[in-house]
Amino acid sequence: MPVEKPYLGQDCVTPYPRSEVLRRELWRLVQATLFRWSPRPLHGFRAGLLRFFGATVPEPSQVVVFPTARITFPWRLTLEPRSMVGPGVTLYNPGPITLRRGANLSQGCHLCAGSHDYRRWSMPLTARPIVVGENAWLAAEVFVGPGVTIGELCVVGARSVVVRDLPAATVCAGNPCVPVKDRPTPA
Amino acid sequence: MPVEKPYLGQDCVTPYPRSEVLRRELWRLVQATLFRWSPRPLHGFRAGLLRFFGATVPEPSQVVVFPTARITFPWRLTLEPRSMVGPGVTLYNPGPITLRRGANLSQGCHLCAGSHDYRRWSMPLTARPIVVGENAWLAAEVFVGPGVTIGELCVVGARSVVVRDLPAATVCAGNPCVPVKDRPTPA
Amino acid sequence: MPVEKPYLGQDCVTPYPRSEVLRRELWRLVQATLFRWSPRPLHGFRAGLLRFFGATVPEPSQVVVFPTARITFPWRLTLEPRSMVGPGVTLYNPGPITLRRGANLSQGCHLCAGSHDYRRWSMPLTARPIVVGENAWLAAEVFVGPGVTIGELCVVGARSVVVRDLPAATVCAGNPCVPVKDRPTPA
Repeated sequence: MPVEKPYLGQDCVTPYPRSEVLRRELWRLVQATLFRWSPRPLHGFRAGLLRFFGATVPEPSQVVVFPTARITFPWRLTLEPRSMVGPGVTLYNPGPITLRRGANLSQGCHLCAGSHDYRRWSMPLTARPIVVGENAWLAAEVFVGPGVTIGELCVVGARSVVVRDLPAATVCAGNPCVPVKDRPTPA
Repeated sequence: MPVEKPYLGQDCVTPYPRSEVLRRELWRLVQATLFRWSPRPLHGFRAGLLRFFGATVPEPSQVVVFPTARITFPWRLTLEPRSMVGPGVTLYNPGPITLRRGANLSQGCHLCAGSHDYRRWSMPLTARPIVVGENAWLAAEVFVGPGVTIGELCVVGARSVVVRDLPAATVCAGNPCVPVKDRPTPA
Repeated sequence: MPVEKPYLGQDCVTPYPRSEVLRRELWRLVQATLFRWSPRPLHGFRAGLLRFFGATVPEPSQVVVFPTARITFPWRLTLEPRSMVGPGVTLYNPGPITLRRGANLSQGCHLCAGSHDYRRWSMPLTARPIVVGENAWLAAEVFVGPGVTIGELCVVGARSVVVRDLPAATVCAGNPCVPVKDRPTPA
């Protein structure tokens, strides 16, 4: 039998151990029901569900997590107090995602902490952490790629595509997202 | 008890009066049922629902509003005759949104007439009007920010991010969206 | 009675024959049920449904099609072996869409093979083919416009907006999407 020519994604395997796959499926079920259906004001309840599944949430009563947010792996998520995960936000986190104190994600943001090594036919999953700095604000529908750190007090304009680190206390925008001006400390 | 350090979003309050909140929830219910489930050709029926909730729609039979469109506040929406709100369009309108005669919004467009004043810890909501000019066309998944006026007969390319006014009779594209060439009057 | 001033979209007609409209509605029904509800691992089953509705899929067991993908016209879709249509991908194909061998579309990509001729008041539908080359990879939420050919072994960065052809064996990104560096053949 002739050997098949190589192709992209050939022999790609999921790197997750079996126990994690089971935990993921259980979380998917909870997220699609209890989490999604909970009344909007019950942010602490949803933060508690995330913590029950392994998220680091020191003060569940002090974070805001909307019911339409989607988190792939709660056990690789850290929500510091006063952080916010807005409506329709996607947190895809094969690598860890951390929201520092007071970090805010507006509606439709997508933080994507995984990619693939396209230099190999098998396209192995690559996972790199994302950190959103203290009191940073990501406006609507911002995309953040793997390995990115967003500085303290950053403001990121709507629909920006962030593939490199952003410096603290700047207003940033665009695809690719770059700093456009300073951001003064709020009053 | 020690005073908490300030954080972004601290003491943020919704600026909407109680009566508006109730009206909004009632609209959400109607939008999720009657509006969404209505058969696609019944554009006039959906325009009528919007008008019943306070939208300015002089001729409901002369506009096109798809069932998967999402409007936050009908009472701050104006649809002039021959305008179109396409499938999956989001109209988030703490500030008023106006579609002039013959303005067309293709699938997945997001008009976002609100933001937040990030110079203050409380991030107060800021609302500014959006106007889409006569016979302008926004192609698929265009994002429009608060305060933007799009000129008459403009064509805005797919996935553009419009944060500044666009001049009449131009073809525009990009993030940020800028004019790229003239657009002749249609024949 | 006075003649109405012209407006954008006036006398716009759907160019599809009646039989195609019926077939489209039947497919919509299947896609919203059997296709969507099928368990994730059953990629061959979904590829078989597409083929039953007219797609060109020589080896249904050798393609990956996620249940949340949305295809408008299966009969204008070609999936060569080892190609992948990821979660939440939209294939809007009034013009034909072809995925060559080993072409991969990540989550949320949108291939849009139709537009409108804005030089005419009636905005007639224009349909042009999209081809994704052999072993090309489109990362998350890439948008591809009508008439675009993406070269063999291309890598297209997340959230790119592709409106012109991309050369083979390059890494490309941005809005508009342009080549940024070479892509070596995988090992």
